[in-house]
Amino acid sequence: MSLGKFIVIEGLEGAGKSSAIELVKQVITEFTEQEPVCTREPGGTPLAEKMRDLVKIADESDPLCDEAECLLFYAARTQLIANVIKPALNKGQWVLGDRHNLSSLAYQGGGRGLMTLVQSISDISLQGFKPDLTLYLDIDPRLGLARAAQRGELDRIETQKIAFFDRARETFLSFADQDESIVVIDASQPMEKVHQDIRSQLNQHLANLN
Amino acid sequence: MSLGKFIVIEGLEGAGKSSAIELVKQVITEFTEQEPVCTREPGGTPLAEKMRDLVKIADESDPLCDEAECLLFYAARTQLIANVIKPALNKGQWVLGDRHNLSSLAYQGGGRGLMTLVQSISDISLQGFKPDLTLYLDIDPRLGLARAAQRGELDRIETQKIAFFDRARETFLSFADQDESIVVIDASQPMEKVHQDIRSQLNQHLANLN
Repeated sequence: MSLGKFIVIEGLEGAGKSSAIELVKQVITEFTEQEPVCTREPGGTPLAEKMRDLVKIADESDPLCDEAECLLFYAARTQLIANVIKPALNKGQWVLGDRHNLSSLAYQGGGRGLMTLVQSISDISLQGFKPDLTLYLDIDPRLGLARAAQRGELDRIETQKIAFFDRARETFLSFADQDESIVVIDASQPMEKVHQDIRSQLNQHLANLN
Repeated sequence: MSLGKFIVIEGLEGAGKSSAIELVKQVITEFTEQEPVCTREPGGTPLAEKMRDLVKIADESDPLCDEAECLLFYAARTQLIANVIKPALNKGQWVLGDRHNLSSLAYQGGGRGLMTLVQSISDISLQGFKPDLTLYLDIDPRLGLARAAQRGELDRIETQKIAFFDRARETFLSFADQDESIVVIDASQPMEKVHQDIRSQLNQHLANLN
């Protein structure tokens, strides 16, 4: 039995990640004749979800320092990889991830200017583990945030400055530039066209994953 | 106003850490004419205590992987340093720590054989921050565990094999060998003699901390 594949969807808020995930799930199910295991990050195991919660409950009386936030995100990620992603892949199941490591590199690394810290912790804790294919839904944060605001979905991170998201977007694009396994989808297009592009990219890449 | 100093007590279970801490607290208070801020690790801030709890609640349904455990310990440690230890030192207060980084290096690094992982995460997340003075209470784990058992205090880590503690002890001693700021106290002696040694080492070192 061959190993499963790990496919990840990344993108700024309002890029259309949720509907893209439904589409990709459908395409993978058609391709493999089996539903993929779906994960979300940070979180995805009982303990990893509790680590995610810790990031959210930090307040002024005990503000989460940059290092602790980054270490917590990677604690959650290694837990998810060890107990969900790798066991599934080893059983031949495919895994579909709502965000993965690229989000940490883009938001904490690029957005917050902590790239050296994030990249080092990433290298040490993941030890080369990475998705087989990442679809990055690219959108100008001004447009993405306007979309997210219409859904009433702006949380702490989303209300930070546009400049932060611009830096995150630049980081997503710069990683995509250097890594063939990251495919950029223009998510500013009408949803129908975005989904057409996703389907076409998947058709092109899925068969080539070895 | 001069910066405070960070003094740490380390030692295997049953080495007499608790009573040593009381003594050191008293000596520091006499020396600085102010009570030190006392910390314990892992934990010591509301969020860091919650991280400590996560390590304890891990069970068979979602076992904590080595990487996640190590990242969690360092998340707790960086949080404690950022929000408790450094602010106190900057105000000129002294800090007395019940365990610190050397415990991670000894238990996870030496005991569990994860030294490369632990040392890397330590280097990245602590960025050179270390105690001004560490008193390591050295004891043969056979004697220490027998003492701890009499107190009815054996937890998950303590019931692991003696070989694990032998490796942790070797690691404590090996770090002490290479670092003048780590002082070894023979904790197998009668408590009165141990306390006499602690007092004498403190008298020798405290005045020299610059």
